[in-house]
Amino acid sequence: MLIDPWGSELLEYEKVVNDFGLELFNKKLFPKPNRLMNRGIVFAGRDLKRISDAIKRKKKFYALTGIMPTAQKLHFGNKMVIENIRYFQENGAKTFLLVADLEAMIARKISLEEARRRALEFHIPAYIALGINPKKTFFYFQSENRKLTKLVYAFSRRITLSEFRAIYGKADPERILAALTQAADILFPQLDEKMPCIVPVGIDQDPHIRLTRDIVRRTKTEFGFIAPSSIYHKYTPSLDGSIKMSKSKPESCIELPEDPDSVCRKLKRALTGGRETIEEQRKKGGQPEKCIVFELHKQHFIERDDELAKIFNDCKTGKLLCKECKQIACERYTKFTEEFNKKFEKARKKIDRLKFLKD
Amino acid sequence: MLIDPWGSELLEYEKVVNDFGLELFNKKLFPKPNRLMNRGIVFAGRDLKRISDAIKRKKKFYALTGIMPTAQKLHFGNKMVIENIRYFQENGAKTFLLVADLEAMIARKISLEEARRRALEFHIPAYIALGINPKKTFFYFQSENRKLTKLVYAFSRRITLSEFRAIYGKADPERILAALTQAADILFPQLDEKMPCIVPVGIDQDPHIRLTRDIVRRTKTEFGFIAPSSIYHKYTPSLDGSIKMSKSKPESCIELPEDPDSVCRKLKRALTGGRETIEEQRKKGGQPEKCIVFELHKQHFIERDDELAKIFNDCKTGKLLCKECKQIACERYTKFTEEFNKKFEKARKKIDRLKFLKD
Repeated sequence: MLIDPWGSELLEYEKVVNDFGLELFNKKLFPKPNRLMNRGIVFAGRDLKRISDAIKRKKKFYALTGIMPTAQKLHFGNKMVIENIRYFQENGAKTFLLVADLEAMIARKISLEEARRRALEFHIPAYIALGINPKKTFFYFQSENRKLTKLVYAFSRRITLSEFRAIYGKADPERILAALTQAADILFPQLDEKMPCIVPVGIDQDPHIRLTRDIVRRTKTEFGFIAPSSIYHKYTPSLDGSIKMSKSKPESCIELPEDPDSVCRKLKRALTGGRETIEEQRKKGGQPEKCIVFELHKQHFIERDDELAKIFNDCKTGKLLCKECKQIACERYTKFTEEFNKKFEKARKKIDRLKFLKD
Repeated sequence: MLIDPWGSELLEYEKVVNDFGLELFNKKLFPKPNRLMNRGIVFAGRDLKRISDAIKRKKKFYALTGIMPTAQKLHFGNKMVIENIRYFQENGAKTFLLVADLEAMIARKISLEEARRRALEFHIPAYIALGINPKKTFFYFQSENRKLTKLVYAFSRRITLSEFRAIYGKADPERILAALTQAADILFPQLDEKMPCIVPVGIDQDPHIRLTRDIVRRTKTEFGFIAPSSIYHKYTPSLDGSIKMSKSKPESCIELPEDPDSVCRKLKRALTGGRETIEEQRKKGGQPEKCIVFELHKQHFIERDDELAKIFNDCKTGKLLCKECKQIACERYTKFTEEFNKKFEKARKKIDRLKFLKD
């Protein structure tokens, strides 16, 4: 296979793995790894053997992720998390999908009522449209989960202010509360039964994982939780080539969903590995390993490996030019959006049937 | 009347009033003030006019206090709070009695289950025995009050770490959480309806009142709460003469309930305003204004003012000697205990009938 698992950011991600004490992701640990795992987009993790064992021996474990009900758009980062959740769900994980309404209230001043409305009208149907199986998922709102509250209080005396500062850089009351709440989200399923847990996140969320694992160690006698495992995916780069897509640069950012016309227009201006002139590219070939559009194909648009390999090779040999390649991306995004919208509408109609954990 | 409203601690309490920006308690504001108010044991407050108006105009207001379900004993400080709560309850206050189970978990590592057991088996029946009317009281456990949780999160972004430090001297995660929880306890009844609130506390609890009032100001647009009013009672002095009874000196501390024999034995060694010899005391008279036993009479044992005046005068004139006076205290405590035990047992039998707020 020709896919470079590290892409253009090799050194950067390697540094992260070393600095944070992560383990490199080894796809051999997991049966039928998904596209993200296969292509090295999932690049690292913590305590992965534990999850591998649970899957292989069909033991109980759980996967969880949270919805921050702010903007009524998702991004590729959310999509990757959902795809990974889906992988674990299909491999036997009990799945928890929580709405971080308390955190949204703290961080974004969104009322609990508004957070609920947004989650029900957009985020939860969108997560289902992207592959979460609602019948196999436990949903809850943070503000309705009393067990969570109890853990937040219990954990509060296990971490000092200086430790918060060491992990988060800054410690203020609302951040402390948000961080303790995330740890409680990750661990509360184990109040009923101790079991391994997998949390798929972007690398920027690792501080929460570290905090949670610290808390697990410190509450060993009190709770005896099993430390959560985690996997990390690489960022989807910005269309202008910088490391992470961000709404702050709307012309370089693709949202989910977004009008395909708008996306195709943005793709036309995306940074590629193309040469100065068509002639030069026909002769020397393109540089897919430097190309944002190829990275999008790899991360999101092209599911089949042979198809991706063909694009790579056709680019390398000068057969496939950037314009055509961007057209492929444009078509794939358009198709993705159509499918997403259909599934989304279907999920939204059934939203009343969902059951939410309350305690 | 001869009762010195400030007793031997006049200057100290005056300083507190000035330093903390309190108002002196003016008993004329309140119809039929209770013994503690009448005798200057309740010595200060905040925003008392607001409560006075509510009582006089029969407007809605509420009183609240919390139970910390730690030791299965009360102290005179609890008794004074309960007597004041009772006063406001009898004067029309909607009354909230909360079990601070989340705080007990943080501060004393008591599990929520243990906190519940203690509250139901001891504290709540004891509070009822001391005069809380259970039929007119809303009880709740912090851990079961979701509205409280929401307020804790909402308040967390209104106070900075430095401000916590300024109020409490120290800021660590569990203290921050405990303080925010107290503010939420005080204010959550106003989520349903804005109304004045009175919180009777010992002066050492004033930081919580200040924090809560700060939060009220800062959440004006968001919640529009009315700032809580408060009243402060003086400490019951230790039998050895120091300013506050404390369990750390068990021989100088009377608990509620405690075996009357043990109490009478301790009373015999209490610091009094007596003279060196009986002869001298017969001639010069005693000094009740310096006497711990007289302070106990004044604060707790002697309900009727004319009776207290007689003890004061008989001491002053050398007619009542310390031994006899201590015997009065001993008899009163014994009688108090008998009555307490009877009421306590009665309240405990009915504990299943109490209704707890849940949300």
